Amino acid sequence: MNEVADCPESEVEEDLSNVEKVSLVGAGPGEPELLTVKGLRLLETADVIVHDRLINNRLLAMARPDAEVVDVGKIPGGGRRQSDINNFLISTARQGKRVVRLKGGDPFVFGRGGEEADALVAAGVPFEVVPGVTSAVAAPAYAGIPLTHREHASSFTVVTGSLSGKGGGNSPDWETLAKTPGTLVILMGWRNLSDIAAKLIANGRSGATPSAVVSWGSEPWQMTATGRLDSIADIAKSQGLEAPATVVVGDVVRLRERLNWFESLPLLGRRVLVTRTRNQAGLLSRHLGELGATPIEIPTIDVRPPHDYSKLDEALAEVSEFDWIVFASANAVRAVYDRLVATGRDSRSLHGVSVATIGPATADAIVSLESLPI
Amino acid sequence: MNEVADCPESEVEEDLSNVEKVSLVGAGPGEPELLTVKGLRLLETADVIVHDRLINNRLLAMARPDAEVVDVGKIPGGGRRQSDINNFLISTARQGKRVVRLKGGDPFVFGRGGEEADALVAAGVPFEVVPGVTSAVAAPAYAGIPLTHREHASSFTVVTGSLSGKGGGNSPDWETLAKTPGTLVILMGWRNLSDIAAKLIANGRSGATPSAVVSWGSEPWQMTATGRLDSIADIAKSQGLEAPATVVVGDVVRLRERLNWFESLPLLGRRVLVTRTRNQAGLLSRHLGELGATPIEIPTIDVRPPHDYSKLDEALAEVSEFDWIVFASANAVRAVYDRLVATGRDSRSLHGVSVATIGPATADAIVSLESLPI
Repeated sequence: MNEVADCPESEVEEDLSNVEKVSLVGAGPGEPELLTVKGLRLLETADVIVHDRLINNRLLAMARPDAEVVDVGKIPGGGRRQSDINNFLISTARQGKRVVRLKGGDPFVFGRGGEEADALVAAGVPFEVVPGVTSAVAAPAYAGIPLTHREHASSFTVVTGSLSGKGGGNSPDWETLAKTPGTLVILMGWRNLSDIAAKLIANGRSGATPSAVVSWGSEPWQMTATGRLDSIADIAKSQGLEAPATVVVGDVVRLRERLNWFESLPLLGRRVLVTRTRNQAGLLSRHLGELGATPIEIPTIDVRPPHDYSKLDEALAEVSEFDWIVFASANAVRAVYDRLVATGRDSRSLHGVSVATIGPATADAIVSLESLPI
Repeated sequence: MNEVADCPESEVEEDLSNVEKVSLVGAGPGEPELLTVKGLRLLETADVIVHDRLINNRLLAMARPDAEVVDVGKIPGGGRRQSDINNFLISTARQGKRVVRLKGGDPFVFGRGGEEADALVAAGVPFEVVPGVTSAVAAPAYAGIPLTHREHASSFTVVTGSLSGKGGGNSPDWETLAKTPGTLVILMGWRNLSDIAAKLIANGRSGATPSAVVSWGSEPWQMTATGRLDSIADIAKSQGLEAPATVVVGDVVRLRERLNWFESLPLLGRRVLVTRTRNQAGLLSRHLGELGATPIEIPTIDVRPPHDYSKLDEALAEVSEFDWIVFASANAVRAVYDRLVATGRDSRSLHGVSVATIGPATADAIVSLESLPI
């Protein structure tokens, strides 16, 4: 071997490998493809994944098969308190395990990411934050509602609705929020929506303010209700919406009428079984996805050569006796052309025979084969 | 071929392939790995990419080699007006090209994504929104500042600073924003920061409110200045910060002192050339990245067998004459063991010779080889 490869590199690795950290990763709003590239890389390599309750199962399926996947509500030997979660993160990281703490949306937009980071720092465990796409922005976007718009809003405010009127933290100041300009986005406000709307109206927001509730934003079963602020809670309930929900209050809700791109996808919510061969499924799945469907690829077809070519060889040997050859698929085109070559002929032996195809992809296959030297 | 493969599938493809759409894609705050998985997939397959000026070049490098990459400030045959951009998107999509409109942060958080979507709808061109990680959340997170925290803020407001005091859209209502509770995040506010701070203070915000400016958030050259609201503009300028900058005003800025994880990475901003073999570079690059460095992999080492084994064979033939074998690398271990086997021997012929290694990875290589049947 070359002498130059014999440098003692391994000591460098030893020093670096002592570094361990906990990654606080934002999972995004729901749709698995809205995870960040960094989040995916960490998810795929983590030893332990500690996840919020509402994380999409399709995300968790990306973990290593041998990774430990822990629902935050079911910490081993612990309870549901924040201190139990903090302690589990700390002790796991101290065991030298790479921990991903997977949080809905963004780790630092509600969700107590700051508290977890603080506990890690206090314990001397390094951490990093991998920001995520917050539902506060993405759920409205998937409902066709931009939070800002030159003609409608030059600011937006995001507030949690889960604390209204209760202790255990700063309750939002609805009196002032009612007077805040721009778009108002309420996360975790589904349960208290009637109360919140009433407080906003009592403190000066017009009851006619356009409002929307987006349930399960970005998921194929997303539902959106719109109406006036003074009746949006009832409208959403009557339409069967449920938590998790993102509430948007402001003029920008009007834009949904024109910009509602997602819920108007023709195949939204349909799961479509794609049974084509593995090689051919990709294009169809992509088109289905663009139309809103969730493609599920289970190849039931496997295109292989036959055990016995004698019937095909027989037909090809007397092909000039036929009036027509009808190709039913691109696979058939490739098989016949391959066989012609294998038996010492080429497409010139089809001289005088009319050729038909079923579908343009089959015709394309002939054109592309004919344009190559066989 | 099997009969089952001969179903005429191609007509289905024909109908679906008519669907064209423009994808409004959020690029995230700067760090390329904060792009979403969906955004990356679209970027890698688009025919045309129309991008904002500040998009990271490392993102644009992910485009197809033959993709047309257009800076939005340099539309072919057009100007810099929004209508020129809209028209270019429309005409390109109508040519049957897959267009990605790549916007900094999120497409619907400022950035006029709503206007572009509206123009596409008016022209009958379908569109989709791929939300991104907004700088409003990510830049503070990379500075160690959570926008919300149970003890500090139960809401945050995001506002553009680029319109302050000018026409061409709704100017933010600084008088009311000064009184809005929670964290205030100002995007595009660098140029007007002195004015904005003065307006906030004049309308009731305390001049002592903790404030931060994050310049080039999430990039390796990120810089953050902190101070009181009444002096933050001067402090940031004196420290050499520049646009693009995200401004954070509120008590949560205090958390940075403990949670400043990114700028304290020991190798942040260093670009490190990794010259190891392509196979061995990955682990080192990952460790470097975790320490904040930007690894640049240029393998200068290629481990290959020598042209002539005679010297090694000679030494191995009389190996019992030696007192010590010192292995300088794992590559050397593998070469010697392979050669023993190739010449009809195995590690038993090292009987009586003391073995030393340089570094634990080299020792591990011996252990793993010895534990296998040779």
